Amino acid sequence: MAVEVESTINLLPVSGISLSATSAGIYPNARNDVVLIKTSLNSTVSAVFTKNNFAAAPVKISQLHLLSDLKQRFCLINSGNANAGMGKKGILDAIQTCSMLADFTDSPIESVLPFSTGVIGVDLPIKKITDSIPMLIKSLDEGNWELCASAILTTDTVTKGISKQVMLDDKTITITGIAKGSGMIRPDMATMLSFIGTDAAVNKKMLDKILDEVINSSFNRICVDGDMSTNDACVVIATGKSKNSMIKNIADKDYNIFKQALSDVCEFLAKSIVRDGEGATKFVSINVNGGKTSIECKQVAYSIAQSPLVKTALFASDPNWGRILASIGCSGLKNLDISIINIYINECCIVRSGSRAKEYTEQSGAKEMLKDELFLIIELNRGDYQETIWSCDLSYEYIRINAEYRS
Amino acid sequence: MAVEVESTINLLPVSGISLSATSAGIYPNARNDVVLIKTSLNSTVSAVFTKNNFAAAPVKISQLHLLSDLKQRFCLINSGNANAGMGKKGILDAIQTCSMLADFTDSPIESVLPFSTGVIGVDLPIKKITDSIPMLIKSLDEGNWELCASAILTTDTVTKGISKQVMLDDKTITITGIAKGSGMIRPDMATMLSFIGTDAAVNKKMLDKILDEVINSSFNRICVDGDMSTNDACVVIATGKSKNSMIKNIADKDYNIFKQALSDVCEFLAKSIVRDGEGATKFVSINVNGGKTSIECKQVAYSIAQSPLVKTALFASDPNWGRILASIGCSGLKNLDISIINIYINECCIVRSGSRAKEYTEQSGAKEMLKDELFLIIELNRGDYQETIWSCDLSYEYIRINAEYRS
Repeated sequence: MAVEVESTINLLPVSGISLSATSAGIYPNARNDVVLIKTSLNSTVSAVFTKNNFAAAPVKISQLHLLSDLKQRFCLINSGNANAGMGKKGILDAIQTCSMLADFTDSPIESVLPFSTGVIGVDLPIKKITDSIPMLIKSLDEGNWELCASAILTTDTVTKGISKQVMLDDKTITITGIAKGSGMIRPDMATMLSFIGTDAAVNKKMLDKILDEVINSSFNRICVDGDMSTNDACVVIATGKSKNSMIKNIADKDYNIFKQALSDVCEFLAKSIVRDGEGATKFVSINVNGGKTSIECKQVAYSIAQSPLVKTALFASDPNWGRILASIGCSGLKNLDISIINIYINECCIVRSGSRAKEYTEQSGAKEMLKDELFLIIELNRGDYQETIWSCDLSYEYIRINAEYRS
Repeated sequence: MAVEVESTINLLPVSGISLSATSAGIYPNARNDVVLIKTSLNSTVSAVFTKNNFAAAPVKISQLHLLSDLKQRFCLINSGNANAGMGKKGILDAIQTCSMLADFTDSPIESVLPFSTGVIGVDLPIKKITDSIPMLIKSLDEGNWELCASAILTTDTVTKGISKQVMLDDKTITITGIAKGSGMIRPDMATMLSFIGTDAAVNKKMLDKILDEVINSSFNRICVDGDMSTNDACVVIATGKSKNSMIKNIADKDYNIFKQALSDVCEFLAKSIVRDGEGATKFVSINVNGGKTSIECKQVAYSIAQSPLVKTALFASDPNWGRILASIGCSGLKNLDISIINIYINECCIVRSGSRAKEYTEQSGAKEMLKDELFLIIELNRGDYQETIWSCDLSYEYIRINAEYRS
C-alpha cells in the first residue's frame, strides 16, 4: 500500500564498506534477517539513537561501544526481534552476539555495534544469530546494499534506499543509504533503522555535527501515527576512500556540499518511510508558515499530523477542513488569532481569515483530496518562521497490521 | 459497539428544571435534534467549556451570556451541526437563535445559552431551529430527561444519563445528568456536551468551585482517541427547590456530600462516553501509581492511552506488553528508572522490575486481554502520587465511522 515509493535500484557501492545478509531463521520463512556491515580501517562513524527511556539493549550497547575511539567498525543487525524490554538478559544477549563476532574477526568487542528490530519482549535467538556469523563474514561484498536493504525490513512493504554522488575537491564521492521503518509511534524503538555509507573524508567532529543537523530536517520531521518520530538508530560511516581533502571544520568549502548531499539522502529515506507508513494510502506534506518560532510551526504541524480525525478524513479523501481547523485550535499556541489563518490543500484555498473561503466548494476540495500526494499549507500570519513535516493517513490497513503483527 | 454502557433508564425529574426535544429537520431523518432546557427563577448555573482556540460560536456566546448575573436560564441545544469554523456568520447565527428564543419567552437575550454539536463548517440551519422554538416551549416538562439525552447524540450509539439522590440537611436532593460524546480528539469542539441538573441550593461561587474540581476527576480523565479530552461544555444547574440550607462555603457540612454526589454523576457520564467511544470494544482503566507528582502520573497514563499501537493491541486482545513499555518510555519523564517499574493487566503481573515477569506466560496475559473491561496498573515506584484515567481501544469501526462521518 506504499504511496509511490521510488524503487530502490542501482544502489552504488561505497569504497571501504562491505555488506552481507543471510537467513538466520529468526523469521519462520527463509527470508534474510541478519546483516553485517564492515568498514575499512580509518573509517569514521557517527550515530544518533532513540530517546526512549526503554531504549532496547542493542541501542545501549552500541552507544557504549561508540565511546571507544576505534577506526574500524562492524554493524551486526537483525530483524524479527527487537531485543527490547528484556532487562539484564537483553543486555547480556546483545553483548554475546558482539563478543562472538569480535572473536571471529579478531577485533575488540567495542568495534561491534549491534542493532535489532522487530517484536518487543521476546528472547533474542542468539544461537541463530551467532551461527550465521561465519556465513555473513564469508559473503561480505561492497555490492550488497540492496540485499541488506531488504533484510532489515519488518512490516515495511518496500525496500528503501538511495545513492547520490557529488564532487568534493575534484573527487566524485558517493553516499548510499538504506532504511527500514513503517509504523513509528513517538520516539520509539523497534521501528526505524538507517545505515548510510560514504567514501568522503570527514572528521568525527564534523560528521557528528552534520548528522545532528540533517537528522533534524529529515528523520525528525516525519510522523506516521503518533507523536513526532525520532529515529531508533541512524548510522553514518565515512571511509575517506575517495581521498578528498578531509572536511575538518565548517569553513571548509566542501562542508556545505557534503552536508546538503547527506541531507538529500536522509530526506529521501525519511519520506520513503512515511510513504510506506503502515496502511498509508496518502502522502501528505504539511507546511506551517508565518509562525513566531520554528517550534510553534512544528507544534501546529504535528497537531494536524497526529490527529486521528484528520488522518481518517485524508483516508476517506474527505476535504473535512473543520477537522484541520480543530486540530490547529488545540495545538496549544498562545494568543492564536484564528481570524487571520489561511489553509490550502494543494493550490486550493479552503479557509481564509479563519473560516471557509468564499470561492471554496466541496467539489474543488474533493478533487484535490483524491490525489495520492497532498500539500497542506497553513498560514498563521503572525511571524516569519516556517516548518514542513511529512505524514500519511490512517486506514483500516493500519489497524489490521497492528492488530495482527504478533500473530 | 459500546462496551457495557448501563442503559439510561429511570432518570429522575429535578424540581425546577423542565426540558423538551423535537425534530427541527437538521438531520435528514425525523430524529429529534433540538432541545430546550428551562430553569426556574433563582437558579444558579455553572459551566466549563473547551479550551480550543477555534471554540465554536455557541461556546463564545454562552461564555459571554454567563457573564450576566441572571437567575433564570434557557439552554438551546442542537445536534447535527456544530456551528464551528464559520467566522462572524457563525456568531451572528448563534445570536439570532438566542434572540428568537428570548423574544418568545420575554426574557433578556443573555438568559439564553446556545449549544451546538455535529459537523463543523456547515451553516447553522437557523430557520429550522427557530421554527422549532414554539413546539419546544409548548412541550417543556420535568419528565423529559431521557428524551433529551437521546436528542443531543451524534455518532453515539447509546444514550448516557444517570440520577443520584443524597440527603442534605435532612432533605432528599436529586442530581440528574445527561451527556453526549463518542469521538473526542484533544480539547475539541463538536464532541462532548453534558447537562446536569439538581434541586440542591448551592451558591454560585461554590458551584463553580465544585464543578471545576469534579470535572478534573471525570471529564478531564478520559481519552478515546487523541490527546487528553477536556469537555466542550458541561453545564450544572442548581435550582435550590429542595430547600436545603444553601451551601455557601467549603466548611458547610453538606459541601463534601454534594461534591461527592456530583463527582459520582460526572464520573459515570465520563466513563459512559469512553464505553461508547467510536468503535470501542474494550474499556480500559489505566492507573499509574508511585509517581513523583500527579502530573507525571497523568503523563504516563495518557502516553499509554493515546498510543495507537497499544490501542490496536487492546483491540486484538494481544497482551503485547512491549508496546506498553515503549509508550511509558516515551512519555517524557526525566530520570525514569525502568528497572523498578511493574505492570499489571488486571491481577496478572506482566512486567516486574522493567522486564517480563518470571511467572508471566502468554496464555495468562491473553486470558486477561480477552475481557471487555481491563485494569492496567503501572507502578513507577518513585513517589506517592497516583492517577487513574479511562480509555478504549482502536478498531476498524473507528476508521469506518470517521471516514464516513460526513457522507
